[in-house]
Amino acid sequence: MNEATPSAEPTGVYAKFETELQVRPDDIDMYRHVHSSRYMDYVLAARFEQMERCYQMPMSEFEKRGFGWFMAATQMNFKRPLGLGDRFIVRTWIEKFTLIGVKVQFQIERVADGKLSCDGWFDYVMVSIETARAVRLPGDIRAKYAI
Amino acid sequence: MNEATPSAEPTGVYAKFETELQVRPDDIDMYRHVHSSRYMDYVLAARFEQMERCYQMPMSEFEKRGFGWFMAATQMNFKRPLGLGDRFIVRTWIEKFTLIGVKVQFQIERVADGKLSCDGWFDYVMVSIETARAVRLPGDIRAKYAI
Amino acid sequence: MNEATPSAEPTGVYAKFETELQVRPDDIDMYRHVHSSRYMDYVLAARFEQMERCYQMPMSEFEKRGFGWFMAATQMNFKRPLGLGDRFIVRTWIEKFTLIGVKVQFQIERVADGKLSCDGWFDYVMVSIETARAVRLPGDIRAKYAI
Amino acid sequence: MNEATPSAEPTGVYAKFETELQVRPDDIDMYRHVHSSRYMDYVLAARFEQMERCYQMPMSEFEKRGFGWFMAATQMNFKRPLGLGDRFIVRTWIEKFTLIGVKVQFQIERVADGKLSCDGWFDYVMVSIETARAVRLPGDIRAKYAI
Repeated sequence: MNEATPSAEPTGVYAKFETELQVRPDDIDMYRHVHSSRYMDYVLAARFEQMERCYQMPMSEFEKRGFGWFMAATQMNFKRPLGLGDRFIVRTWIEKFTLIGVKVQFQIERVADGKLSCDGWFDYVMVSIETARAVRLPGDIRAKYAI
Repeated sequence: MNEATPSAEPTGVYAKFETELQVRPDDIDMYRHVHSSRYMDYVLAARFEQMERCYQMPMSEFEKRGFGWFMAATQMNFKRPLGLGDRFIVRTWIEKFTLIGVKVQFQIERVADGKLSCDGWFDYVMVSIETARAVRLPGDIRAKYAI
Repeated sequence: MNEATPSAEPTGVYAKFETELQVRPDDIDMYRHVHSSRYMDYVLAARFEQMERCYQMPMSEFEKRGFGWFMAATQMNFKRPLGLGDRFIVRTWIEKFTLIGVKVQFQIERVADGKLSCDGWFDYVMVSIETARAVRLPGDIRAKYAI
Repeated sequence: MNEATPSAEPTGVYAKFETELQVRPDDIDMYRHVHSSRYMDYVLAARFEQMERCYQMPMSEFEKRGFGWFMAATQMNFKRPLGLGDRFIVRTWIEKFTLIGVKVQFQIERVADGKLSCDGWFDYVMVSIETARAVRLPGDIRAKYAI
């Protein structure tokens, strides 16, 4: 076939959003760096902020419709540790949609030098709060997030 | 009045209960000691365990009846910091009942040397989960806890 | 003695400083409010920020001189819980100096309605990092903080 | 060469170790499940306990020799959430050694029903505390851990 075929599914380069945050003293561990598990909390915090500000559909709206997000899997690569008082950017974007969720990529960069501190991805699945089971991503929600 | 008057309210020396716990690595802060706010979490953990094992009324039973516990105030005195891997005893007891709650005293002792690490008290108020307002402590609950 | 006596020690009304922070999703507990122990972390975060910005002597400078701050005691009064995404002001000020430390008062107010969420005080003692023992507050440090 | 060659490196099936822990109330999030990032803390806690009890070389001994462990990467798969008060087993084992570290596999199982809650792996790199750079795994340490 020689002609360009319109894809039913765009190859999907989705918008990247950024949230700036700062390390809190209680995030610091015995090595005087941010404790590993707190990077997961930072991405979560950025994602909540971006759901409201960037996707125009905050967590509270999901809940009103009886939906929650469950983290099904993650991969995280720790490059350079953040330290006390560091400011950092959390950049996230949707890599792809599945029938029941999204794969979100992220990067955490230190503001002071722009260097990458941590990157990776999170697989989220949409669940019904009532049944605690995965549900098919509603079309209107997908549309809001496919920007 | 010259005669001893029977008190409607016993002067109340209530039972002391103990729970043994261990410091988790994520509790350690930049000074290589347990982070101050985690002592509060330790008392909470011990209290939940004792509600079930010692008072025979676990948190889940309060919730079935529509009640929750709200921490209204605390005082904590930090004596000797716990460190990585330390085992410790959390001893708690009710100092007194109020119409709407209890004042709980606590002591945290390091197992290795029996020395006092932290002590203080928590004021808890019983709230209705529905209204989020304080409610009068039901008589049967008070009876279960006045041991 | 009928005459007013000049006090060697001014009655000390020390400067109040404010830091604005936001609740992170990982601060939220099973009651959908900020978990009690995180308020302690909020005051700590504000205090670190104010040590640098307001008192012109950040934590790192204490450490270069071999000093750390140990929290000796706290009282906290929980008035109105903060919730997901709430912005809040942490206001702190020195109530008084002791030979070896300071008593810091704090208030946490929700930005949305200006209502008091939590208040109380922290007693901090200055320790030598080398000996882990309390030390007398050096005059120049006291001067920097007595603003 | 027609004959089977004895491998200098055994195909390495390393010992699996188990630590039993319990969910603390402060681990619970707004969905009334263990907060995602706390599973990382659970594996860390189990690993510290097993380093001492099973490998006979606790974290403190690494530090005496000037070494620390840095988490370089992780993948975690969340299967079934743990809830308030749940007891669970953390099973870990070394999957393979690299020149500068180890890949550790883990499984978290709920005690009540033996069902898998979370699994995945952690890549750890040995670092010099002085230089904060990766170092080659010393032979005697590797020997202690290759059980």
